Amino acid sequence: MREELLMAPGPTQVPERARLAMAQTLCHHRTNQFSEVIRSCRAGLSEVFSSEEAPLLLTCSGTGAFEAAMVNFTRRGERVACVGGGKFGERWGEVGRAYGLDVVDVALEWGDALDPDRLDALLRDDPGCRVITISASETSTGVFHPMERIAEVSRSHGALLMVDGITAVGVHTLPMKEWGIDVMVCGSQKSFSLPPGMGFVAASERAWERADRSDHPRYYFDLRRERKKQAANQTAFTPAITIALGLEVVLEMMKEEGLGEVVARHGRHGDATRAAAEALGLELLAKSPSNATTAMLVPEGVSAPQVCKLLHSVYGVRIAGGQEHLKPRLLRFGHLGFISERDVLAGLAALERALIAAGHEAQRGAGVAAAQRLYDASR
Amino acid sequence: MREELLMAPGPTQVPERARLAMAQTLCHHRTNQFSEVIRSCRAGLSEVFSSEEAPLLLTCSGTGAFEAAMVNFTRRGERVACVGGGKFGERWGEVGRAYGLDVVDVALEWGDALDPDRLDALLRDDPGCRVITISASETSTGVFHPMERIAEVSRSHGALLMVDGITAVGVHTLPMKEWGIDVMVCGSQKSFSLPPGMGFVAASERAWERADRSDHPRYYFDLRRERKKQAANQTAFTPAITIALGLEVVLEMMKEEGLGEVVARHGRHGDATRAAAEALGLELLAKSPSNATTAMLVPEGVSAPQVCKLLHSVYGVRIAGGQEHLKPRLLRFGHLGFISERDVLAGLAALERALIAAGHEAQRGAGVAAAQRLYDASR
Repeated sequence: MREELLMAPGPTQVPERARLAMAQTLCHHRTNQFSEVIRSCRAGLSEVFSSEEAPLLLTCSGTGAFEAAMVNFTRRGERVACVGGGKFGERWGEVGRAYGLDVVDVALEWGDALDPDRLDALLRDDPGCRVITISASETSTGVFHPMERIAEVSRSHGALLMVDGITAVGVHTLPMKEWGIDVMVCGSQKSFSLPPGMGFVAASERAWERADRSDHPRYYFDLRRERKKQAANQTAFTPAITIALGLEVVLEMMKEEGLGEVVARHGRHGDATRAAAEALGLELLAKSPSNATTAMLVPEGVSAPQVCKLLHSVYGVRIAGGQEHLKPRLLRFGHLGFISERDVLAGLAALERALIAAGHEAQRGAGVAAAQRLYDASR
Repeated sequence: MREELLMAPGPTQVPERARLAMAQTLCHHRTNQFSEVIRSCRAGLSEVFSSEEAPLLLTCSGTGAFEAAMVNFTRRGERVACVGGGKFGERWGEVGRAYGLDVVDVALEWGDALDPDRLDALLRDDPGCRVITISASETSTGVFHPMERIAEVSRSHGALLMVDGITAVGVHTLPMKEWGIDVMVCGSQKSFSLPPGMGFVAASERAWERADRSDHPRYYFDLRRERKKQAANQTAFTPAITIALGLEVVLEMMKEEGLGEVVARHGRHGDATRAAAEALGLELLAKSPSNATTAMLVPEGVSAPQVCKLLHSVYGVRIAGGQEHLKPRLLRFGHLGFISERDVLAGLAALERALIAAGHEAQRGAGVAAAQRLYDASR
């Protein structure tokens, strides 16, 4: 019997309701019927993002949404502070360099969160740098940056804050408008639990004022055009119709559960998984942890890639390993999207078995017990 | 009862086999299992494109694939002849201008095909112009350009030929390598009968030599990176997993039917639909017609938008109307993808009813009869 439980930090399991909606006979996108889908998706996303203006739907993966933000809201040669500390934070810098920006790398150890005071000093000492990029929840390290303070510091210097919310939106509280986040990008395959293929970008009025001044060449990712079209419930180019149909369903599911409860549930999964990791003698990489994914280091002598492989091939659970230099020792256990306590416990039970099979000395059931305790205490 | 028959020039009906494959539990993309999907999709596409090198899979709609071709295979300021004659041909020029190319508009009446001798003269008289873009099957007008001769002329002048094959690949014979087409782009929602959300780009060695010399900024659409990744059966960024799973299925279906037969079937649908249009007293817009879609003009006094509306709201068939200035008079009846004779006849029967309801004097059954005769004669 071969059936897989997907516990990666994205793509995530797609709920059956959404899968069935996407499997229906395809509708045409230039119709009133589909305009209503666009309208309702954008209205639902506005609530999840708590944004000034409804997010735009783009047919691309998350990186396309990064690029759309970069080419519309900055100018060639502009100085931009790109907060690193992981693969995705660093990607902002790569996109910036590709477009000829003057990128200031705000380097961080992988696993560390940005100290808002450091950002404050940077912005004070470098008045030419008035754009900041950051990955709120750094998927490669499981770090969640202190976003409320970071937004406050950005505001106090009049800087534009562009946030990768790919594994943060719908996982952590991150109210764009209230905190003054200018641009936030997201993707379909994380907390929205859909297949990858759609990106979202929301922007503040302050960001939009920059769009006309931007001198980067752009066509597919020209958000001014998308903004105009989507205000009329159309898209500039043929959209990923099925993903939009799925999005309508999962937004409805989020509404049924309650957005506050969706975030709270992710908090419980994060707490439970971290407790399990510690009970299993694994070190947590992130001191300021994301509730999307738990990054855990196996001790010397145990091979993380082997644990991942056993987990999948023998125990039927797919998690992610580490990236770049963290490959030999890191495990990333995802718990975002429409994931139940049962899923997390099943994933942890399999993790225990794989760790033991890979030679790690852990007590059978210790991780599951710790997680259960956390869950039960939160009832 | 509400059930819709989709007979638009794309998106097209998605076969049940593909829909079920896409509705399965989502798999992760960084796995051997998905690498095998990438490998088999690219191998299958190579046959459909008859390309020198396997086409690349991109997560975007067709326009994203246009842009990817433009930014990788041209240089800023380079002179490029963009063949117009319709919305999509003209789009190449729009993308080119957005990226600072020196665009030479090869204007055509909407409905006309490019005369290869005109191209020959243009390339002879303007030695600085060595890149040509064209939409092989112009979806907005139903024209199929004489691509074999156009490729021959391009070759004879050493010019780079970039072709939008979005409604041509898998519909017409268009062997890239044999004819010397340098770049061809396509999308998932046309002859491949999948939901929109994936674009394909194939390029010749001659085109690839240009990729390193290109000075356009690019990141998401940097095809050099994709080429390297996809050679190892990976993608640079998270791909549209479900569409790839569907692609594997439809490529298998094309193989079962035989690629020659797929093209021949589109030819029969085109012939049958054109015969029906004439029997119904509709004028064909294209003298050199595409087998993807038949563009027909209603006579004065009949409103094409009303026919489209009746067709959908009363008779349950979705076709497309005209774009831009052709809106009042044009109907575009699509017959591409996994479409059967039964679908075409059902669509034509509904079209007859809608035409008559909109005040057009046509004989009931005349269109269906003409199409039947064509189909039966081809057996």
